[in-house]
Amino acid sequence: MSQRVSAKTDQFSSSDSNRQARPLKHAKRATLGGPLKLELGGSLPAVTVVYETYGRLNAARDNAVFICHAISGDSHVARHDENDDPGWWEVLVGPGKPVDTDRYFVICPNVLGGCRGTTGPGSINPDTGKRYGTSFPVVTVGDMVEVQRQLLDSLGVERLRAVVGGSLGGHMALTWATRFPDRVAGTVALATSARLTSQALAFDVVGRNAILQDPAYKAGRYYENAGRPAVGLAIARMLGHITYLSREAMMQKFDGDRRNAREIHTQFETKFSIGSYLAYQGDRFVERFDANSYLTLTMAIDLFDLGDTPEKLAEALARSTCRWLLVSYTSDWLFPPFQSQEIVNALTADDKPVSYCNVQSDCGHDAFLLPNQISTYGELVRSFLANLRTDDDASLSVPSHAAISNDGQGGDLPSSLSPPAPTSIFHDHRLDYETILDLIPPGASVLDLGCGTGGLLARLRDRGHQRLVGIEWDERAIVSCVDRGLDVVQADLNAGLDGFTDGQFDFVVLSQTLQTVLNVAQVLREMLRVGRCGIVSFPNVAYHKRRAELAEQGRAPRVHAEQGFQWHDTPYVRSLSIADFESFCREQGITIHDHIALDTAADVVIRENPNLNADVAVVVISRTC
Amino acid sequence: MSQRVSAKTDQFSSSDSNRQARPLKHAKRATLGGPLKLELGGSLPAVTVVYETYGRLNAARDNAVFICHAISGDSHVARHDENDDPGWWEVLVGPGKPVDTDRYFVICPNVLGGCRGTTGPGSINPDTGKRYGTSFPVVTVGDMVEVQRQLLDSLGVERLRAVVGGSLGGHMALTWATRFPDRVAGTVALATSARLTSQALAFDVVGRNAILQDPAYKAGRYYENAGRPAVGLAIARMLGHITYLSREAMMQKFDGDRRNAREIHTQFETKFSIGSYLAYQGDRFVERFDANSYLTLTMAIDLFDLGDTPEKLAEALARSTCRWLLVSYTSDWLFPPFQSQEIVNALTADDKPVSYCNVQSDCGHDAFLLPNQISTYGELVRSFLANLRTDDDASLSVPSHAAISNDGQGGDLPSSLSPPAPTSIFHDHRLDYETILDLIPPGASVLDLGCGTGGLLARLRDRGHQRLVGIEWDERAIVSCVDRGLDVVQADLNAGLDGFTDGQFDFVVLSQTLQTVLNVAQVLREMLRVGRCGIVSFPNVAYHKRRAELAEQGRAPRVHAEQGFQWHDTPYVRSLSIADFESFCREQGITIHDHIALDTAADVVIRENPNLNADVAVVVISRTC
Repeated sequence: MSQRVSAKTDQFSSSDSNRQARPLKHAKRATLGGPLKLELGGSLPAVTVVYETYGRLNAARDNAVFICHAISGDSHVARHDENDDPGWWEVLVGPGKPVDTDRYFVICPNVLGGCRGTTGPGSINPDTGKRYGTSFPVVTVGDMVEVQRQLLDSLGVERLRAVVGGSLGGHMALTWATRFPDRVAGTVALATSARLTSQALAFDVVGRNAILQDPAYKAGRYYENAGRPAVGLAIARMLGHITYLSREAMMQKFDGDRRNAREIHTQFETKFSIGSYLAYQGDRFVERFDANSYLTLTMAIDLFDLGDTPEKLAEALARSTCRWLLVSYTSDWLFPPFQSQEIVNALTADDKPVSYCNVQSDCGHDAFLLPNQISTYGELVRSFLANLRTDDDASLSVPSHAAISNDGQGGDLPSSLSPPAPTSIFHDHRLDYETILDLIPPGASVLDLGCGTGGLLARLRDRGHQRLVGIEWDERAIVSCVDRGLDVVQADLNAGLDGFTDGQFDFVVLSQTLQTVLNVAQVLREMLRVGRCGIVSFPNVAYHKRRAELAEQGRAPRVHAEQGFQWHDTPYVRSLSIADFESFCREQGITIHDHIALDTAADVVIRENPNLNADVAVVVISRTC
Repeated sequence: MSQRVSAKTDQFSSSDSNRQARPLKHAKRATLGGPLKLELGGSLPAVTVVYETYGRLNAARDNAVFICHAISGDSHVARHDENDDPGWWEVLVGPGKPVDTDRYFVICPNVLGGCRGTTGPGSINPDTGKRYGTSFPVVTVGDMVEVQRQLLDSLGVERLRAVVGGSLGGHMALTWATRFPDRVAGTVALATSARLTSQALAFDVVGRNAILQDPAYKAGRYYENAGRPAVGLAIARMLGHITYLSREAMMQKFDGDRRNAREIHTQFETKFSIGSYLAYQGDRFVERFDANSYLTLTMAIDLFDLGDTPEKLAEALARSTCRWLLVSYTSDWLFPPFQSQEIVNALTADDKPVSYCNVQSDCGHDAFLLPNQISTYGELVRSFLANLRTDDDASLSVPSHAAISNDGQGGDLPSSLSPPAPTSIFHDHRLDYETILDLIPPGASVLDLGCGTGGLLARLRDRGHQRLVGIEWDERAIVSCVDRGLDVVQADLNAGLDGFTDGQFDFVVLSQTLQTVLNVAQVLREMLRVGRCGIVSFPNVAYHKRRAELAEQGRAPRVHAEQGFQWHDTPYVRSLSIADFESFCREQGITIHDHIALDTAADVVIRENPNLNADVAVVVISRTC
């Protein structure tokens, strides 16, 4: 029975909506010199900002991390001490947490237009002595960030280690990075987008209509009345709540217990358990939130628009000079992953340093606030911050398109090399790995397709290469790459390389990955579109041992046996010989520049009859050079 | 400019919501003898049903097709003549259409509880002389179907060729099939479910709250007032509309033109084009729909529940004796495909004859009303109806678990057989195809995994087999199977065979499909769980020509060459020899009962050294027998 109760309690606890409007005990207040000129016209005579800080600004003044909250958050991002109320991002921010307040000086302000202390529609207009109400002007995310910049000035923080935000907070982070590029070393944007989908915007419209049509709304002049537009605001919040959860999460919470509604005192329908949950969330929200602020903030979100085409988006992001970390969540349908990928694509196409992970989660949009996937996104944030310096500057000292010479590279390999540590199942062929390293001339820019945990890229960085990017599918491998300070983007190679422009890299590497790819022709086409040269290594099915397996034992060639796989469970879905690959290149008009055949078991380079004597081939290819 | 206008016009045309409440010129009226006892208690003193009919009932009285409409539909499913207003399912119903009114006698009634003539909350209660309003009792989908049954009695139609419905109409179709099994030969359920997801239910709750809290609602007694709860109903409709569209469809309609809102006269927000669209839809709906009916019908949908576990669902469906066709749409997130699959799984597990297709579509839930995918779902409906007879009875005359003898089957194959017509790329090995046919004893039940267009199953049917089911992934192949009158279920073999019970079939066939499957071990495990015996045919990589390709030419063995594929584009992702398969079976504890090796090029059965001399193996396996 107690279990039952706790299950029910759990149904009603939510990411951030369950808190009453508690006093912000540790909040500080800054009054900015007015007037604040607004982006869409009009101005505010004076602006007050309420904010909280955690940790200490160090002597170098380079450890400040700025947190931007989402629509219903506030400055109380985390508790200040053990007796304090928990904050809305307790999982991420605090001593020893990913945003470590022992290490960073964390600043979190309440947003312009909100209702938690910073100037908003419920504030007194100093010019009139009355609350703004609907005379509060339309504010944009840009206006919110401008206020935050002035706050930062008043705190004497010139440059931020990072700006971190999710959802609307992500919109602010994107705006920081593009409006004030010289003040941001790193940007972390979680569960966000360059603009809402029309679907998400539609939900906001319906929510606003519910508020605006509530008779108690009285054209926004309800502050003096006994009644407030509680019905409209609660309905807007119920609707919002549905969009924050995934279908899977709602199934888990409510499907098995549909008719067992909680008895609560509410004017709303409580026939079904999901109904009593929504009614509860709606009623609690009304207690702590102002309808005019809800209208103001949703409109700012709806108007946020970094561009509706890849070109416009790239243009908007071009001004940024920070390092980037983007995170989306697979079940987030309000800010769906493809929207983060659009931002990532615009950044990679513009040679901006970015890492990206689409975290596997069934928690929907709320995932960025919840502990469930913190071991992934928390570690990504922790590593990303740790690898930043405030003097970081993404503009590269070595141009990524620097001309390099391709002739003779790798022609005289040493016959034995010390093996690097294996990094993934596709990177433990020590000899082909070293061969690839030596084929890449100093200073070349490299895109590594299927980079695993970043072994090759880390070695290239150690050799002084600057523009290095990895593509990887495995979530844990991506966490390792970011931990190493590498730029890695989660993507499925089979889907192409849309995020990269023609000839963007000197080299694109496909190391022991070709045999795992279904769309071989497309992957190679994309590789040679994006790279001036490609380096492909693959196992040779015509190696004499493989031939013997088939010819003498009557078994399918065991190219995968060294990795412990068998014919029925190997990740290798393509089987090819060196001759097959050469023939394919001829058909496709691909030029083979260099061809290094290896016997990795014997640790030797093969020069005689490689199609018979080599178990691995490393081939340098291109379309043009 | 005219193009512009038409694009805008298109934005505002919708599946079924754009029509004013037009008079139903061809509607007929039936008054049923009361009182109608209701499922959840209470009764209605008398019930009037408004309906329309198309075509003629034939002399055998076996060509009646019953159409059930969704929440905002009515009896006007199609036009009656050229001058008539179009109906809501014009794409599906009419002369020469999939539900061919030249051939079938089509009946479509307005639903109980609605507002288009059949008794509902807006009707006059004969006991009081006043409108029911909120005194109208809670009605269920079962009550709606009971009214429909009484209508059918009054029309003298004993047995229906089919019941056809989508969404709520699908709920009614499911109810028909399970409540009145002896009256339904075929059931077509599109875009439906056994119960709503909690997410879909949540949207209904919010919509109802908007109506119930509208001050003009006046506890449902608004009929005598000047004002009606237009705001609440419009908001509920706006919300509904978002859920009927897919995110993709909304992107296509509104993303590029977000701020170009249509100027319409409305009290709702029209800042964004999606906002003016929703406002328009909301306002139009209010003109033709009654809020109390909306509450009544959404509650009936929300209460509909065939079971929240596979077991309960199977129990609910066990009474049905009809043939089934289920269709879902890939982008439908209101009635997501997995919910149709749950119904299909319950039916297949209970040996009910069912076909299922998850139609590729970006039109969301509305897809079942739109012309976009009519070439798939329309043809499925047309073929399904054409292959039904009213004397069809799904109870099999031959039990599917009939004991069969497995010894000696296929041991003495003729050395040459006439080739069947190729049906799919996996079915054009004529010899292994004939071999499989001859391995299956008369009367055996067969599940064909990767059945293509149904060539093997059709041949088995010609030989008198009764319980035959195909699994296929390709949409066009499924359309072909249904056209042939076969039962085929769309599913990905890699995901397992959840819809089938242990030992359900005498034989499960995997003909030239093993090599295309990633999860080989799981597929074989599932195959031998569901089937008493399995028959697997696959190309042998150790065939002497394949050995020569590798040994002499240094090329990857070309098992796929006959199908015109190369190493880089073949659908074959697994490469195995007969020896590999035998070894795998030993490891997995699978018994090989029979082993027929073929040289398909020479059209002969191989007895000497099959691993060298056969290009194709046909193997009979099991876990137990």
